[in-house]
Amino acid sequence: MAALHRTIVVGGVAAGMSAATRLRRNDEQRHIVVLERGSHVSFANCGLPYHLGGVIEERDDLLLQTPESLAARFGLDVRTRHEVVEIDRERRTVLVRALETGDEYEEAYDELVLATGARAVRPPFPGAELAHTLRDLGDMDAILAALEGSAETPSRSAVVVGAGFIGIELAENLTRRGLDVVLVEREAQVLPPLDVEMAVLVDERLRAHGVEVRTSASVTRVEPGTVTLDDETRLPADLVVTAVGVVPETGLAEKAGLDLGPRGGIVVDAQQRTSDPAVFAVGDVAVKRDALTGTGTLVPLAQTANRQGRLVADVITGRDVTAPAVLGTAVVGAFGTTAAMVGWSEKRLRAEGRQVRVIHTHPSDHAGYYPGARTMALKLLVDPPTDAILGAQGVGEAGVDKRIDVIATAMRGGLRASDLADLELAYAPQYGSAKDPVNMLGMVADNLAAGITDTVQWYEVGAEARDGATVVDVRSAGEYAGGSLPGALNVPLDELRDRHVELPAGRLVVTCAVGQRGHTAARLLRQLGRDDVANLDGGYRTWSRVAGI
Amino acid sequence: MAALHRTIVVGGVAAGMSAATRLRRNDEQRHIVVLERGSHVSFANCGLPYHLGGVIEERDDLLLQTPESLAARFGLDVRTRHEVVEIDRERRTVLVRALETGDEYEEAYDELVLATGARAVRPPFPGAELAHTLRDLGDMDAILAALEGSAETPSRSAVVVGAGFIGIELAENLTRRGLDVVLVEREAQVLPPLDVEMAVLVDERLRAHGVEVRTSASVTRVEPGTVTLDDETRLPADLVVTAVGVVPETGLAEKAGLDLGPRGGIVVDAQQRTSDPAVFAVGDVAVKRDALTGTGTLVPLAQTANRQGRLVADVITGRDVTAPAVLGTAVVGAFGTTAAMVGWSEKRLRAEGRQVRVIHTHPSDHAGYYPGARTMALKLLVDPPTDAILGAQGVGEAGVDKRIDVIATAMRGGLRASDLADLELAYAPQYGSAKDPVNMLGMVADNLAAGITDTVQWYEVGAEARDGATVVDVRSAGEYAGGSLPGALNVPLDELRDRHVELPAGRLVVTCAVGQRGHTAARLLRQLGRDDVANLDGGYRTWSRVAGI
Ligand SMILES: Cc1cc2nc3c(=O)[nH]c(=O)nc-3n(C[C@H](O)[C@H](O)[C@H](O)COP(=O)(O)OP(=O)(O)OC[C@H]3O[C@@H](n4cnc5c(N)ncnc54)[C@H](O)[C@@H]3O)c2cc1C
Ligand SMILES: Cc1cc2nc3c(=O)[nH]c(=O)nc-3n(C[C@H](O)[C@H](O)[C@H](O)COP(=O)(O)OP(=O)(O)OC[C@H]3O[C@@H](n4cnc5c(N)ncnc54)[C@H](O)[C@@H]3O)c2cc1C
Ligand SMILES: CC(C)(COP(=O)(O)OP(=O)(O)OC[C@H]1O[C@@H](n2cnc3c(N)ncnc32)[C@H](O)[C@@H]1OP(=O)(O)O)[C@@H](O)C(=O)NCCC(=O)NCCS
Ligand SMILES: CC(C)(COP(=O)(O)OP(=O)(O)OC[C@H]1O[C@@H](n2cnc3c(N)ncnc32)[C@H](O)[C@@H]1OP(=O)(O)O)[C@@H](O)C(=O)NCCC(=O)NCCS
Ligand SMILES: [Ca+2]
Ligand SMILES: [Ca+2]
Repeated sequence: MAALHRTIVVGGVAAGMSAATRLRRNDEQRHIVVLERGSHVSFANCGLPYHLGGVIEERDDLLLQTPESLAARFGLDVRTRHEVVEIDRERRTVLVRALETGDEYEEAYDELVLATGARAVRPPFPGAELAHTLRDLGDMDAILAALEGSAETPSRSAVVVGAGFIGIELAENLTRRGLDVVLVEREAQVLPPLDVEMAVLVDERLRAHGVEVRTSASVTRVEPGTVTLDDETRLPADLVVTAVGVVPETGLAEKAGLDLGPRGGIVVDAQQRTSDPAVFAVGDVAVKRDALTGTGTLVPLAQTANRQGRLVADVITGRDVTAPAVLGTAVVGAFGTTAAMVGWSEKRLRAEGRQVRVIHTHPSDHAGYYPGARTMALKLLVDPPTDAILGAQGVGEAGVDKRIDVIATAMRGGLRASDLADLELAYAPQYGSAKDPVNMLGMVADNLAAGITDTVQWYEVGAEARDGATVVDVRSAGEYAGGSLPGALNVPLDELRDRHVELPAGRLVVTCAVGQRGHTAARLLRQLGRDDVANLDGGYRTWSRVAGI
Repeated sequence: MAALHRTIVVGGVAAGMSAATRLRRNDEQRHIVVLERGSHVSFANCGLPYHLGGVIEERDDLLLQTPESLAARFGLDVRTRHEVVEIDRERRTVLVRALETGDEYEEAYDELVLATGARAVRPPFPGAELAHTLRDLGDMDAILAALEGSAETPSRSAVVVGAGFIGIELAENLTRRGLDVVLVEREAQVLPPLDVEMAVLVDERLRAHGVEVRTSASVTRVEPGTVTLDDETRLPADLVVTAVGVVPETGLAEKAGLDLGPRGGIVVDAQQRTSDPAVFAVGDVAVKRDALTGTGTLVPLAQTANRQGRLVADVITGRDVTAPAVLGTAVVGAFGTTAAMVGWSEKRLRAEGRQVRVIHTHPSDHAGYYPGARTMALKLLVDPPTDAILGAQGVGEAGVDKRIDVIATAMRGGLRASDLADLELAYAPQYGSAKDPVNMLGMVADNLAAGITDTVQWYEVGAEARDGATVVDVRSAGEYAGGSLPGALNVPLDELRDRHVELPAGRLVVTCAVGQRGHTAARLLRQLGRDDVANLDGGYRTWSRVAGI
């Protein structure tokens, strides 16, 4: 009998274990070895912050499978605490170190799947070794222990460094545990992947729940019990956790001479094949193809990791399949609000010099006449020449994940921004609106694409006013009295037909609460012969949140 | 000065008023008359059941606009209690009856938009005039009055005839008001647009909340206080409401000789133009184009009505736009459960003689390791030769509307069923799973499309067993002991590799709780040389709910 085909998978979590299980379903006649240097496989990294916060009460709930269960069900040879320390591509072997004993041995492979994931970046400041990071159960256990503090000095204060997705989850969950949390972020906003006027809504929520948010701040050093910032502020910190991003775990691949991307990560083709055809890479460690540009990108997210794991198993067993480009849809919850995004942000687009059409809306998650409706903020980014959807963001208490999922699906389906107006989304008053928020985005996009309306952004209106445009607030007198843009005239929409003659000549920028009445006003004025009219996109609500920035 | 262009809109709710407002935004220089025979325009029909149930406390909340507000904002000439009784297409005039005075007068139009909606079907049984229907505020007020009953005999019991979307909403809301509700449905299931194994989950929920559900039952007569069914059951009924469907309100159009569809409704082209180019029809009264077949269909839903209203305004003002075909996405809530669907049902497909690939799953709305996860039932219908998505259904307590919206968007985008596996949906543990329920549907679809697995449906497995197939339940012994398919052998999945030799020769149908372990089992058995293996789609959970049917 010929020797069994041997596939070795390095890393046994999302990508690696999904590869191994699918490989078994595809091929019973194969030796499948999963080598994992950690103590656990198949665990829920994404749940770690919530066990810290006590939301997920049982630590065991994070362990979805064990080597034993995987052996029984899938006939997998899973070895935890076994680290691959070297790849010999010539001989198609890996050198494995059994961490319990220190013994090293070789394993031969026909195909090697690298699913080594990513590791948390350790920031370079002095004392960083006193700070925790959070990537696996061991990290979590260490934080749990630190949380307890000692009997004499229980932990009371925490500094979380980095206000990205995981940093926010940490801030929320450490607050839940009763700690006073300071969240330190180098950028000028929390959630740097989002645009600032969206992120500010999360910032507000964090502060409302007692998190002290310090943006545009860097940690200069950590000492026991204290974190010092670049402005010399000293923050008490019984616990310090850094969450400043991850980098692909490419040590092995690099040593083996596999091609890496310019920003790290293992370069793969559409079949997840590395520069060595017998070696594949999947999940966080692999470079992905960006859906917008087709170029390499790093997207360390669980859906893609799981999906690529399944895909590589199909490739290895001979199916003709290709990995799609990635959109990077992501979501985070914070104290009852949800922030989600897909595709590119405005700042990323602008940084790349791309033109972009921007739409902000503030719709309700369901019909306003049905109790419990909550307002969310949505943002859509559109490619002006093609009307293609480039990205979207949402923040709000309800229904945000649904809208971002719908837009992510529309992007995958190649729908244009204006096509969103036609989506038939399930409507009854407790679920949405007859014109769903996504439909509304489509209508606004349609109006812009067709030149039916023109808008200015919150960051443009100041310069417009300085350059002589008249800002006309078409809200009611009462709303206007509660605050408006500097120098804005107030002509309520319902009086505009009669009073438009009062408006000075020249460019007009109309504004209302969210942009909707402004839209009607702009249309009205245009048809009354005012050629140079624009509507403030997102209205006073978007502008006022960020006017100070 | 030339006379102003005149557009008359008949019907002032979703389609009609959306047409009128958009028309105004498109064209300030136009006389726009909205003629509405009812007392209200722009109201939320979809909220009517919830005001009956006291969920929407204020009746006024259902009134989104008034003739006055529409005049002030949009310069619309809105006349309530004005019925159009005749169209003179030659002279381009309508004959209007002012219902308050009985006076009749003519109005001339350049374009006429018929947005007359639909009316509730009155069933033909004797005493039907004693029963209420629910379409507008007047109907609602009448039911509210009947609900009170009289001082001596307050209403205690209600019979709702018809268990479609509105019937279910009525049953829920009348129960909320404290009435004992019997829900009578002629078909063998509630929610006839859904397939029975999905609808049964709503049925269970209704019963659990005290609604007496009587399917396969017809009302033969209504007398004061009593409803009699075809089996001579007499039900006490202080209140009777029928909700047995709607028909397009085509009286006017018919009299005017406009083309109607075979099942009613005004025939229109892709610009909503009727057989008379000066007359348009939109909303519930218009025939739509079905997305699956391209043929005429009736879809009386609010999104389409609103959207067509906006579209026709664009057509009238000279934009080159076309109405998309409709999918008919719909949703209903009942006592905390949600049922939603898009596209065609299995029974409808089969009735039309179409081949269909059927997938049932029972995923959690979010990661199982995060508290509060709820199981839903999902169903996907796929076109075998093309892998196109033909429809989907979902029932569950959380996350159902989101998944159906995503699938509806995928359908609109022309994504194949297998493409669902690649959707990047926003994942954090409280929102979904790394392999979202929609991704999982895509994986199962992919397996079926590629011939990686074969399944049998809940209604096929009985015949399979009679024809000699062996049913193998791969759940644990404990699960098996709690109930399984008749004659099923029990070989737990984790023992199958060792014990498969125990299985008799010939065809095998494997089954588990939901189909997932069955899938792994089927793959295993196939590769161990068992060529004739199928997996029971949806597993014991789907089968057991409907086995008795
Ligand atoms: C706290 C936290 C929260 C998160 N939340 C979300 C979320 O909400 N949504 C989301 O989409 N994603 C989230 N993620 C990201 C998600 O967990 C990852 O995208 C996913 O786990 C990547 O899977 P992977 O298999 O590629 O890599 P990993 O999960 O990192 O697994 C790689 C494994 O390889 C092992 N390994 C590495 N090198 C070797 C070696 N030489 N020998 C043997 N073993 C090796 C490692 O020990 C590790 O266990 C979160 C991550 C963390 C840490
Ligand atoms: C109780 C209930 C619950 C519903 N729930 C939902 C839901 O959850 N989701 C959903 O998508 N849809 C729902 N619908 C359906 C939705 O309300 C309709 O699809 C939508 O209202 C159709 O809009 P329309 O403008 O075409 O017609 P309609 O809303 O029916 O308006 C037509 C108007 O035309 C007027 N009219 C008719 N003939 C004349 C005439 N000759 N002269 C003058 N006026 C005339 C009528 O009086 C009527 O006011 C529900 C409907 C009801 C009744
Ligand atoms: C769980 C894990 C081991 C993968 O196991 P798996 O069996 O491949 O995957 P799942 O349990 O997700 O099930 C998916 C399989 O079941 C099938 N399936 C799902 N529901 C089904 C149903 N109702 N009927 C039939 N098949 C079904 C899918 O098609 C798929 O099989 P396929 O790949 O052969 O098509 C791996 O995903 C893992 O380790 N996950 C935890 C780690 C992680 O993801 N962390 C990051 C996020 S917190
Ligand atoms: C409300 C009603 C009168 C329509 O009024 P409308 O002004 O056309 O519509 P909406 O209030 O929904 O607003 C949509 C408009 O605002 C615009 N808009 C929405 N949000 C915006 C924003 N943030 N910025 C700019 N424009 C915005 C849209 O683009 C659209 O304008 P357009 O058609 O010119 O593109 C009509 O829909 C109606 O009568 N509805 C109630 C009845 C009903 O629908 N019943 C059935 C369901 S219960
Ligand atoms: Ca502009
Ligand atoms: Ca079959």
